[in-house]
Amino acid sequence: MSAPFFASRWVPRPGHVAEQPGGLAAGFRAAGVACGLKRDGALDLGVLVADPPETTSAARFTRSGVAAAPVELCRARCDLAHLRVVVANSGNANAATGVPGLEAAGATQLAAARATGADPAGVGIASTGVIGVQLPVDRVLDGLAAAQEQLRPDGDGDFAEAIRTTDAFAKRASLRVTLPSGEVQLSAQAKGAGMISPNFATMLCFVQTDAALDPETADLLLGVTVKRSFDRISVDGQLSTNDTAILMASGASGIRVAPESPDELALGEALDALLRQLALLIVRDGEGARRIGRVVVEGGDADEAERAARAVANSPLVKTALHGGDPNWGRVAQAVGGALLDRPLPLDVAIEGIQVCADGAQLRYDEAALAAAVEREEVEYVVRLPGDGAQTEVFFSDLSHEYVSINADYTS
Amino acid sequence: MSAPFFASRWVPRPGHVAEQPGGLAAGFRAAGVACGLKRDGALDLGVLVADPPETTSAARFTRSGVAAAPVELCRARCDLAHLRVVVANSGNANAATGVPGLEAAGATQLAAARATGADPAGVGIASTGVIGVQLPVDRVLDGLAAAQEQLRPDGDGDFAEAIRTTDAFAKRASLRVTLPSGEVQLSAQAKGAGMISPNFATMLCFVQTDAALDPETADLLLGVTVKRSFDRISVDGQLSTNDTAILMASGASGIRVAPESPDELALGEALDALLRQLALLIVRDGEGARRIGRVVVEGGDADEAERAARAVANSPLVKTALHGGDPNWGRVAQAVGGALLDRPLPLDVAIEGIQVCADGAQLRYDEAALAAAVEREEVEYVVRLPGDGAQTEVFFSDLSHEYVSINADYTS
Repeated sequence: MSAPFFASRWVPRPGHVAEQPGGLAAGFRAAGVACGLKRDGALDLGVLVADPPETTSAARFTRSGVAAAPVELCRARCDLAHLRVVVANSGNANAATGVPGLEAAGATQLAAARATGADPAGVGIASTGVIGVQLPVDRVLDGLAAAQEQLRPDGDGDFAEAIRTTDAFAKRASLRVTLPSGEVQLSAQAKGAGMISPNFATMLCFVQTDAALDPETADLLLGVTVKRSFDRISVDGQLSTNDTAILMASGASGIRVAPESPDELALGEALDALLRQLALLIVRDGEGARRIGRVVVEGGDADEAERAARAVANSPLVKTALHGGDPNWGRVAQAVGGALLDRPLPLDVAIEGIQVCADGAQLRYDEAALAAAVEREEVEYVVRLPGDGAQTEVFFSDLSHEYVSINADYTS
Repeated sequence: MSAPFFASRWVPRPGHVAEQPGGLAAGFRAAGVACGLKRDGALDLGVLVADPPETTSAARFTRSGVAAAPVELCRARCDLAHLRVVVANSGNANAATGVPGLEAAGATQLAAARATGADPAGVGIASTGVIGVQLPVDRVLDGLAAAQEQLRPDGDGDFAEAIRTTDAFAKRASLRVTLPSGEVQLSAQAKGAGMISPNFATMLCFVQTDAALDPETADLLLGVTVKRSFDRISVDGQLSTNDTAILMASGASGIRVAPESPDELALGEALDALLRQLALLIVRDGEGARRIGRVVVEGGDADEAERAARAVANSPLVKTALHGGDPNWGRVAQAVGGALLDRPLPLDVAIEGIQVCADGAQLRYDEAALAAAVEREEVEYVVRLPGDGAQTEVFFSDLSHEYVSINADYTS
């Protein structure tokens, strides 16, 4: 029996959700092959196919001003409500590659459409890896042909492997979800460990369900749950050029989830937990990470709370203290003060329920208890600003020697 | 003969400025003592006194919402145009210390005024060190008495030592400046290695001149030169609670620098070079730093250029690549794209004069030449945005294992 997927106290498993060892939702097949983009011969090309032609979908992408070619292609040439195929490669981001990069993404899309019988507009493309190097598209096309032969309902493991870059472990889940109208499946594969960022954003994430969803319902569910998951994490505050999240609904279960129905609510809860736990896995796998922090900011207005939470989550001083198991709460105060300027800020700070600062000034507290609390794998910081109304959270990784090692020598 | 102070190609020594081995500008005395704030017995309390009662001054402070007690005290209870004494301690920031912290700063101010015969409003206080721990004010008062006995015109070395925290080396300069009306001196002492940040901000810096300046002239000169120096550097993007820069003008040279005179221009040029080089020393001494980066952003509007430059300078991905001597220019593009959202951004990127990206797409370039260029101690990145008008620069340090080591275990 492997470790449970819902491992964090911050994301309890909903009562109507059961974990399964693996496998895609009904109606989907996937494969992962090695096509030579990664030098070490590891899997680097994943293909995901929804067989039912009535499959619906929704997608979200990075907001970066330097969006990668596959993101541009998806936006310009896909019917995002009716994606049936996803081709995702690792080892090359196909970003800052200009017209040749767009041509490479386009050639991949056409070849995948031909191989699977899908309409080209139904083929989404995603890439991750080094920026500013042309994609060797011949290798991708050869890999596509090989992957086509290997598509299978339990191909999610290989697919998840094939989209890894610096990830220390593959991230995926297979869930059985009991809706009022019956049982459906949710499966998901994600990658991301660095360049994980503030705005929407992160990594690649592909989610499949065999529920039948209107495209509008798929879009609503994905939009809301992405905002509460991948949009709330930061490894290094760096918005990627390639972030992509795609939800596909095959309808193969025969269960139709109607808008504003109890089914939609129950499926939304399951999807919310799924994406939040996947987001936490990405933080946990933050390059070199040892611990996860959660900062909750209460009070102030929404904009202030957001800026304060991001400032704490992205502060290298807070992150190194988290790494060192150091109860240096002054850095939390400093980070908030650095984000909210030109006014006195009588803030309260609590770490793991131990209040250390009230009205901007230190309190006496149990130092031994605090020292023990910050040595745990998950550490929670609560900051109260003057005023009320707002509340927000951001999950973040620590900053370690390994992050530096991984990133000081990544291209070459 | 020691290494020259003006060591960077980015800050040429002005022709009318000569370096001197040490010593304060005429009219000033300083001392540094160990009063027990630092556990290792190192110097931790510096006192600086201007003897002429006609001394003028100007000051700038952090904009942090969590400003330290000494900063609050200076703002509330000092005549910033007529400071004659500075008391600066390291080993404790006296920040997030509430009313007791303000009382400690106030007691220090009063004791220093009594010891030196200055008006209390003429005594500025500055602190640096750990946040959220009460300042042991008795030690400071004992140290003040000891320092009073040791004030001397060449006390700038001890003073600079006494304000160090994680600094690997003391930062100071003594310059002879030839103005049209005659010769004056400039001396300065600065500290800072971490928590060096975007907004104004950084560290402690004390500058002395024996020129005679109106308070308005001192304020203008300090304001302009701080904007071009300490405001343009980042070690870790973290605005400190304690940043303080104070310029004092004793008038002891008998040379009066009139507003809008050639003298003012020449003194301003010298002060500009002095503060820019001190700022670069702080970046060079960025905790664990091996290399200095300079990012220049041209084009766009002023706000976009500023955001893009900050994003590059504070990107942990750019900073680790700089550390590794890795020519991974895609991270520069990614950082700019992460700061300027929701529009396509056909940017140009050049590193050390080698253009690697035009119109958002990679170019062919001499890889060996680029690899050699990024191995040097100073690396320059030039980013061109669409449109013109704006230009800005930020100097930044790399991100190293040593930064993590230094900061993962600093409080305890």
